[in-house]
Amino acid sequence: MKFFTEYLWFNTAEKKEYIRITEQIKEILYRSGIKEGMVLVSAMHITAGIYVNDNERGIIKDLDNMLEQLAPFGPDYLHHRTGEDNGDAHLKSLLLHHQVILPVTEGKLDLGPWQEVFYAEFDGQRRKRVIVKIMGE
Amino acid sequence: MKFFTEYLWFNTAEKKEYIRITEQIKEILYRSGIKEGMVLVSAMHITAGIYVNDNERGIIKDLDNMLEQLAPFGPDYLHHRTGEDNGDAHLKSLLLHHQVILPVTEGKLDLGPWQEVFYAEFDGQRRKRVIVKIMGE
Amino acid sequence: MKFFTEYLWFNTAEKKEYIRITEQIKEILYRSGIKEGMVLVSAMHITAGIYVNDNERGIIKDLDNMLEQLAPFGPDYLHHRTGEDNGDAHLKSLLLHHQVILPVTEGKLDLGPWQEVFYAEFDGQRRKRVIVKIMGE
Repeated sequence: MKFFTEYLWFNTAEKKEYIRITEQIKEILYRSGIKEGMVLVSAMHITAGIYVNDNERGIIKDLDNMLEQLAPFGPDYLHHRTGEDNGDAHLKSLLLHHQVILPVTEGKLDLGPWQEVFYAEFDGQRRKRVIVKIMGE
Repeated sequence: MKFFTEYLWFNTAEKKEYIRITEQIKEILYRSGIKEGMVLVSAMHITAGIYVNDNERGIIKDLDNMLEQLAPFGPDYLHHRTGEDNGDAHLKSLLLHHQVILPVTEGKLDLGPWQEVFYAEFDGQRRKRVIVKIMGE
Repeated sequence: MKFFTEYLWFNTAEKKEYIRITEQIKEILYRSGIKEGMVLVSAMHITAGIYVNDNERGIIKDLDNMLEQLAPFGPDYLHHRTGEDNGDAHLKSLLLHHQVILPVTEGKLDLGPWQEVFYAEFDGQRRKRVIVKIMGE
């Protein structure tokens, strides 16, 4: 049984960004030498998400539009009484979820043909971290 | 340590369907011989979801109504510029999430009394796949 | 390889409550003796959720407000034809998700600085259970 842990760092230029990280996960998996198991990819901040979907510009914007509708950026969050202005980012993170598990089979990420892994930054322009933990053999 | 992987295939009659798959997961678990561990059940397509909830016809329709309200089927997605018409299916998949982890204790799925596992198809009428990966002893 | 399973019980005073359980998870991890691995924290009922976010009173209420808007408590759910009145609680559980995986590194929950684990009760005032299953070495 083997465990292999690395951390990805992000410091986005924009407040909100959707960044494909599939290749980075594949490289970590390769370095780990693990052939069978599972990869946990989990945001370590509470205003970011991790998700699996299509690497198509339109659907990424559609997702952004939906999240903006369900948890709009704006002043009216109780959280802002603490001096923060990122209430929407917390809620977007909760709606999208902050983690995925990727199966590993025969040394490869066992994903479907269109599945890509994304880091969703909802309150960027500062250093933030994602844990990638692989468990297997 | 043991790993056991199988794939479930679906080709639904309807565009949208909610299909209980608890029994199929139990059969795979039985074939695996694994007594302690975790089962990853994860859609391999980006227009489907996996969830755990009640096998009650009303609540399934309530879920469908909510998803249809939050991410309605319709023409107005940027994703459709690619020629696709399933923007809503991507968003429904993201809202519901595409995977669950089921605990295995003493050879059984360690679920609560009403927990059932479902495959949620949002863009069906073609062959689609779900990975079931068990990790344990 | 080691597996360690415990169950947390809840019986909330209120119908809806958001309860921080990070310390309880840490204690279970300590008892397990596991130093590297993953902790599954998963609600065993279909009207509760588990999530990771900020332990800040304002954002907890913001989350509650959002869920109440997306899946309001009320009479108009088909599920209620069974005699139940908790259709909203099922939908809130599905939106928030019912489980998280926490990474364990060097004997500790490998969480970011503000990440706290919460049990979200949407239909309380009765005994309900959460499984905490640790897998590692």
